[in-house]
Formats: sequence, structure tokens, C-alpha cells
Amino acid sequence: MDKLGANPANSCALTPLGFLERAATVFGDCPSVVYHDTVFTWSQTHRRCLRLASALVSSLGISRGDVVSVLLPNVPAMYEMHFAVPMSGAVLNSINTRLDARTVSVLLRHSGSKLIFVDPALLPVLRDALRLLPAGHTAPRVVLVEDPHEKEFPPAPAAALTYERLVEKGDPEFAWVRPASEWDPMILNYTSGTTSAPKGVVHCHRGIFLITVDSLVDWAVPPRPTYLWTLPMFHANGWSFPWGMAVVGGTNVCLRRVDAAEAIGFEVSHGYGLTETAGLVLSCAWKGEWDKLPASERARLKARQGVRTPGMAEVDVVDGETGRSVPRDGSTMGEIVLRGGCITLGYLNDEAATKAAIRDNGWFYTGDVGVMHPDGYVEIRDRSKDVIISGGENISSVEVESVLYGHPAVNEAAVVARPDEFWGETPCAFVSLKQGGGAVTAADVVAWSRERMPRYMVPKTVIFRDELPKTSTGKIQKYVLRNIAKEMGPTTGTNTNRNSKM
Amino acid sequence: MDKLGANPANSCALTPLGFLERAATVFGDCPSVVYHDTVFTWSQTHRRCLRLASALVSSLGISRGDVVSVLLPNVPAMYEMHFAVPMSGAVLNSINTRLDARTVSVLLRHSGSKLIFVDPALLPVLRDALRLLPAGHTAPRVVLVEDPHEKEFPPAPAAALTYERLVEKGDPEFAWVRPASEWDPMILNYTSGTTSAPKGVVHCHRGIFLITVDSLVDWAVPPRPTYLWTLPMFHANGWSFPWGMAVVGGTNVCLRRVDAAEAIGFEVSHGYGLTETAGLVLSCAWKGEWDKLPASERARLKARQGVRTPGMAEVDVVDGETGRSVPRDGSTMGEIVLRGGCITLGYLNDEAATKAAIRDNGWFYTGDVGVMHPDGYVEIRDRSKDVIISGGENISSVEVESVLYGHPAVNEAAVVARPDEFWGETPCAFVSLKQGGGAVTAADVVAWSRERMPRYMVPKTVIFRDELPKTSTGKIQKYVLRNIAKEMGPTTGTNTNRNSKM
Repeated sequence: MDKLGANPANSCALTPLGFLERAATVFGDCPSVVYHDTVFTWSQTHRRCLRLASALVSSLGISRGDVVSVLLPNVPAMYEMHFAVPMSGAVLNSINTRLDARTVSVLLRHSGSKLIFVDPALLPVLRDALRLLPAGHTAPRVVLVEDPHEKEFPPAPAAALTYERLVEKGDPEFAWVRPASEWDPMILNYTSGTTSAPKGVVHCHRGIFLITVDSLVDWAVPPRPTYLWTLPMFHANGWSFPWGMAVVGGTNVCLRRVDAAEAIGFEVSHGYGLTETAGLVLSCAWKGEWDKLPASERARLKARQGVRTPGMAEVDVVDGETGRSVPRDGSTMGEIVLRGGCITLGYLNDEAATKAAIRDNGWFYTGDVGVMHPDGYVEIRDRSKDVIISGGENISSVEVESVLYGHPAVNEAAVVARPDEFWGETPCAFVSLKQGGGAVTAADVVAWSRERMPRYMVPKTVIFRDELPKTSTGKIQKYVLRNIAKEMGPTTGTNTNRNSKM
Repeated sequence: MDKLGANPANSCALTPLGFLERAATVFGDCPSVVYHDTVFTWSQTHRRCLRLASALVSSLGISRGDVVSVLLPNVPAMYEMHFAVPMSGAVLNSINTRLDARTVSVLLRHSGSKLIFVDPALLPVLRDALRLLPAGHTAPRVVLVEDPHEKEFPPAPAAALTYERLVEKGDPEFAWVRPASEWDPMILNYTSGTTSAPKGVVHCHRGIFLITVDSLVDWAVPPRPTYLWTLPMFHANGWSFPWGMAVVGGTNVCLRRVDAAEAIGFEVSHGYGLTETAGLVLSCAWKGEWDKLPASERARLKARQGVRTPGMAEVDVVDGETGRSVPRDGSTMGEIVLRGGCITLGYLNDEAATKAAIRDNGWFYTGDVGVMHPDGYVEIRDRSKDVIISGGENISSVEVESVLYGHPAVNEAAVVARPDEFWGETPCAFVSLKQGGGAVTAADVVAWSRERMPRYMVPKTVIFRDELPKTSTGKIQKYVLRNIAKEMGPTTGTNTNRNSKM
């Protein structure tokens, strides 16, 4: 039996790109992408993607491994890119549309992007970003993506390179570029950087294939669903559902912006993933018997990140020092670690970050701190860098924050470590108040906390701000606050609470 | 980007065995296996499989790569084996329960099986098979699988090695044996051999993982289904659904025999696979617009084998000589070829058969002859060896048989090639008649055929038999008939029809 192994018929590369041709065969006349009164069928989407991939190669000289960026809202072209760009052999790099010109410039430079597709509304940001590229850096070529549904956009100049002109040039019979290996890069996503500078997460064809099929199974996606795109596709590639919709013949409903007041009728599910996992790899698989519990208990259970999806190999919560699994007691904290086929290849041009996250013991270290409950469900308690160690005791900043959020006047709260001469670190709370919430002092916040948590966890410093600093995806930038706390200098080990207003 | 590739966190072996631990976490208290009034939960199935795997290693000395055979109907132990045996590191070899002692003996010898689990009802066949093993061949150890629900079975002798005694000995905390590589053998299935001697098809962990997840998606299996086992699990491992049920937390309803008169209420779906693909790799994906067609047209469409499942890389129909794709015209015949992650590693100890089926061009040759319809759906027309070439014309024996089956007196019909001095080959029909169907002569059969098919396709020889020879799975053994036709000697190129009664 030892003589048998991988062979030419079974070792062809796993890739999600083949889903599209199958969708054209099975769901050819069914709607694939809907946007205002534009409706494409799966046959049309298939042919348009082949045309675009062909034009990228023949007209624009894109070759295997080149990076092609996109700066687009959830319009039909954004959907098509998820197939068309890798079908040309290139690596798709979706850029967060909320970034400023400086950051876009940094990403274009770091990725060495050859080409960028841009929405008319985002052209000003892109122009500024291109101007910020260092002298000598070859700027990516720009393709404007028309949107006839937005009447305020000026028509594209006759000479401009536009998306539809490129599609027209292409050959719908193009033999798309299959990956030479299933480990070939297919996707480049920059993390939004809550704790550090953006890192370029690279995913391969195999990883994207696996997360796509895994998510369909884990989320029990039915055949021929209608999929309303509210999650931006630039965000971890829409958690792989652009490819998944081709498997099940779904209808992708595109929206430039999500502004409906939808409040009822949804069944909420809870999942967990990172840019580094290409999609959701834990989900709070719901048990029928939980339906009978009171609402507060149901909310407590639903808030847990849950169990690994079927395609993931393993998840664990491990002690930072010993590397051993923490007890399954729902209270001992450790770092959440993962292994499975959809874990990133690593960070582009950042060997140190890659080595820090992907260890020789076979685990990917998420940087998230959590607990393992006795029933095998994982729950996040914090980001690892957000753990405050005071007098040798670990303090979860998330836990302190959740108490602060319970205060009726508190709008936002973030707790970070502040150096302390005696305790090492003490909790420092940044708080913004609700409008018209009345006057609240630091002493009030401390008193509120003392009644609700152990003494050592109570913030020693409380700082009020009108608003807390956030990333473009709305996450509070704790590293900014951490720097502020650091610059304030150490507390002195006594129980001082200051009412600083910045 | 070239520096990034497989790493310790993402290259862990794909295997379906991890589904069981997850099922115990998510569906712990839900029913996993039901048999009469025996009901196991997923927690229990998980612990029982770990116990059994542990006992195989510790008590019976099974080690990585050993072959463990089972000769069981669809009882709970048969389900558990699909996890427990490979969790011990061994390769699971399910044996067709309808085989005779001689064939079982051949398989036990060829596989070098170390251990065999047997049902009390199949013990006599096994005993005969063991007696037929050649002198010097180490016979596998026998484990009797009790069935307290079958009252006529005598109780197991106190000293006998039984399944439940083995489970009791095992450790439910056993660290199951993970495959060293995802290409490690996990499954050994013998084909039933319609065209030749049985071949030992070997599947690896990766292939079984892929076909399992692929089948769940393609067949849109919902969460927590109830799965009635009518397909024998020995048949291509129940098309991978034993593992799939652990993913979705299904309830496996086991039946020793299927004898209910169930006639209505089923929605029939049509799929295609081979032992060599570990499950179904084509399915006749149904289009909503077909619902409006007349019943005969719907039946015609449903009879097509269809399109590749999402996880398969490619399917094609190729010309035997040129190797090129046949036209998509629904009439030009060629051999159906496949590539994808679930294709077999090859045939055990049979390099020639492996090389014949798995070619360097990256295709697995199925031996099935079909056509590609203009809409991309594949339809089988014949087994390649069943093509009769008469005067340079390809004759589909299936096509001729379908005309013969249309005759009101015909019960069974099989058409094979008989050598011919002038035409090379001519069709030779073997026919059995319905009881009380009246007297039918060879001339009648020929006359019936002449009115309904081209002259060159009309059988030149018609042979009546009371019953046609069949494999244990009920397939007509054409190779037996082909040998008979060959031994009759060549026809003489004239249009002679003989009424032979054998």
C-alpha cells in the first residue's frame, strides 16, 4: 500500500475558481448578480469573468503572481473580480474603501500592485494615494469602474481605460490560468491593524477552496439562496461567500451602501474568524435545548464564539507560558490557537510577523485571549495585548469594559494597561459619555466598578474623551490609547484616581 | 510572495475523522445511531469509537497501515467502524456481505487483512473462507459482533473475542492516531468486478474528507437530518455519508435488512460515482424550468448522470483514440474521464490496473462510455468494454439491450461482442424470458430488433437462458457472457441467427 499516493488524477490543485463554470452549466439562466435594475445570469457572469481575465492577460500584460488591487463598494464588478482576477493568474487585493489616501498609498507600495480598479466615488482618494507614492515607485495602472446607476458620476472620458471597455476586449472562450499548485497565492488582504501596522495576509487556492465549502456546510446554506450583500466584500473577501454563491447558484444582491432601517425578522448567528483564516472558523453552533432557556441565558450562550467548523482541524486555548491547553473551566484565560487548511500562508514581506503567528508547533496564534468552557465552546475574553497584568494577576480589559458599559451614562469604554511603579501595570479606562447623560466623574466610575468587580481590576485611572479613536472598520484603536497611557508616566502604586479631561 | 507556502498551521492533514469529536461537542445529547430500541448519542458514539480504536491498538496490536476487514450488515457497529478503525491507524476494508466464501477468501488473502469483524449470520461464510486460505497464510483474527436484537443468534461463547468486550477494554480518552500525511491510505474497497477480477481500490484521508464535504453540499443535506440506511455501508462506504452524518449531526437509522414495501413519497435524485471516486461525483442537478415539461421528457432528463459536483475539478468525455473531447452533441460517444481530489490512490498490488486507469495526462479513465450533451450534462451510454465494433461501427450494447427490454416477453437482456470473420465483431444477445411470457424464438427477437434499430446493430446471435449470471450486487456479469460468446467461435459474416438454448 506504501507504493500508492498522490497521482495525476487526484492531485490537481484545489481551487474555488472552477465553481463558476459549473454554475454556468447548472444555473445558467438563473440570476447571479442583481444591482438596481441590472440583472446578470450565471452564464453571463461566467462569460464576463472569462472576458475580463483574458483582457487582463492580453491587453494589460498581467501575469501569474502579479497583484491586482480593487477599491470598490459592493457593485457587480466587485463580485466579478473575485473570479476574474485570479482566473488571469493574478493575486486579488481588495482594499478597504474607508481608508485614507496615506494608508492606501502604503498598501499599494507594499503590495507592488500592478493595476487598480476604482469606483468613481473613490477616485479622489486614489489620486491622492498615487501622489503619495515615493519617487521611483512604478504606480499601478488605473481602471475606472463605471456605474450608470449613479447619475451624479460624470461619464468616463472617451480615452479612459474603463471596466466595461476591458470586458468587451476579452475573449469569453479564454482558457483561464489554473494554479500550478494549490498552495499558489490567490488573495492578499491587509489587516486593519488594531494593534500594529497593517499586515498583508496571503491566502492560497487550497485555503480559499476549503473555507468556501466549509462555510456553506457550517452555515447550512440552502440551494439557490438570495444573498443580500451587507458585509463589504473587501472585508476578508466577504468571508468567502462570493465563491460560495457560485457553488449553490445563489443570487448576489449588490448594494452600494447599506442604509435601510432593518430591525426585525432576523435570526442572528454568531461566528468568529480573522483575516488570517479567510472566513469564519468558529461558530456558536446552537443546541435545540437552549431554546427553552430565559433570554438572558440565551444571550450569554449566543455570545460565545463556539466550536470549530467542520473543515478546521483543531482549535484550542493555550497558556502563554507553557503552551499547554488551559483547563476547560470557562474561566482560565489563554490564547486562542487554530490549525486547518484555510490558515494564511503568512504575511507578505514580513517574516517576523509570520514567525510570531505561525509557530513550529503547528498552531496559528490568533492574538485573541479566551477561555474554554466545560462543554467545549470557546469564548473570547480579550486581545492578548489587552491583558493587563497587575501585581501578577491577569486582568481582562474586556471584562472591565463590559462593567463600564453597564453604567447608564457611558457611551464607549476602553481599558488599557498603564505602567505602575509597584504593581507593574494598572487598568486605565478611557470613557466617552452619552449626550445628555449628565455629569459623571472619575470617582463615580470607580465607585460603579468597585461594586461590580474585584478590587485589583478597578481602573486606577479614568480619562474622559468626547470620542475614542477608531480604525476604518470601527474598531477602537487600543494601541493609540495604550501609547497615551504610557506617556502619562507610571502611577505610583497607591489607589489614586484622576479625573483627566483631554 | 514566493517565499510563502504550506506551513505547520495550514498543512495539517485533511481527514474526516475529526468530524466525530466536533459532533460530540455540538450534538452530544442528540441521537447518532438508532437500531431497534438501541439509541446512541453523539457523545456515546464518540467515546465508543475511541474505546474501540484504543483496544485495536492496545489489545490486538493493530498498527498504522494494517488492514482491518468487516463483514457486517448495517448495524451500529458497522457505522462505528468507519471512525474507529482508521482512528487506530488501520485501513478499513468493508467486504460485500453477498460474496461467497471463495471470493471472501481471495479478498482476505489479497488484502493481507489482520483482523475481521463478523456478524453472527455471516460467520459460516467466513469460516469457509478461512478454510480456503492457502497453507502458510496467516489468517486474520476474528471478532464476533453481537446482536442482542436477533433472538435466533446463539449467545457468544464466554471466551470468544466479541465487539462489546473489545469496546469495554478500550480507553475513551485515547489520543486517536492522526494520519502522518493526508495521502495516507484510509480505506480499501474491492470492486465487484463486472468486467474483470476484483480490484482493491485504495482511498486516502484527503480524498474521503473531500468527497464527504462535497456530497453534503451537492445534495444539500440539511442540519440534523434523519438518515435511513438502505444503501449497504459496505458499498463504496455508503458513498461517504457515514462521515457526513457526523458533520451535520444526523441520526443514522440502521437496518439489518431493507424489506419494507415503500412505494411513494420519495423525490428521486440521480447521481453517478464509482468505487474509485469514493462517492458520487456527478449529479443530475435539476433545473426549475424542467418541472414544466411532460413526464416522459422529465424522465429523459433525470436519466442523465449530469454535471460534476462542486468539489470535483473536471469531467470530460474523450475519444478513445485521440484523447480529445468529443463534440457536445449528445450523440458522439467517448470514455468518461474524471479528475479531482477524491479519485483513488490506485489499486492495491495491481500496478497494471492502476496505470491503465490513471494516466499521465491527469485523467482517471472510468471505463464508462457516454456522451456530452450541448448543455454540458454527461450521459452514460455503455461500459467501454461493452462497446461492440462491427465493421468499424461502434455499437452500444446498452442501446441494443434497451430495445430488447422493450419486448413484452423479455425479462433480462445482455448484449456482448461475438467474434466475426468479416465484421470483426457482431452483437450477441443473451436473453431470459418472463415466466408465462409465451414462446419466443430468436427470429422473433431479431424481427423485433430490426424494426427498431439500424441493421448493423441487430443481434446476429440470440441465446436464451433461464437466468443471466450476476455479481453479488446484482449486476449482470458480462465478462462471463463475453467468454461464452468467444468460446462459441466466430460467426461467418453472414446474417445467421441461431436459436440456441443453453
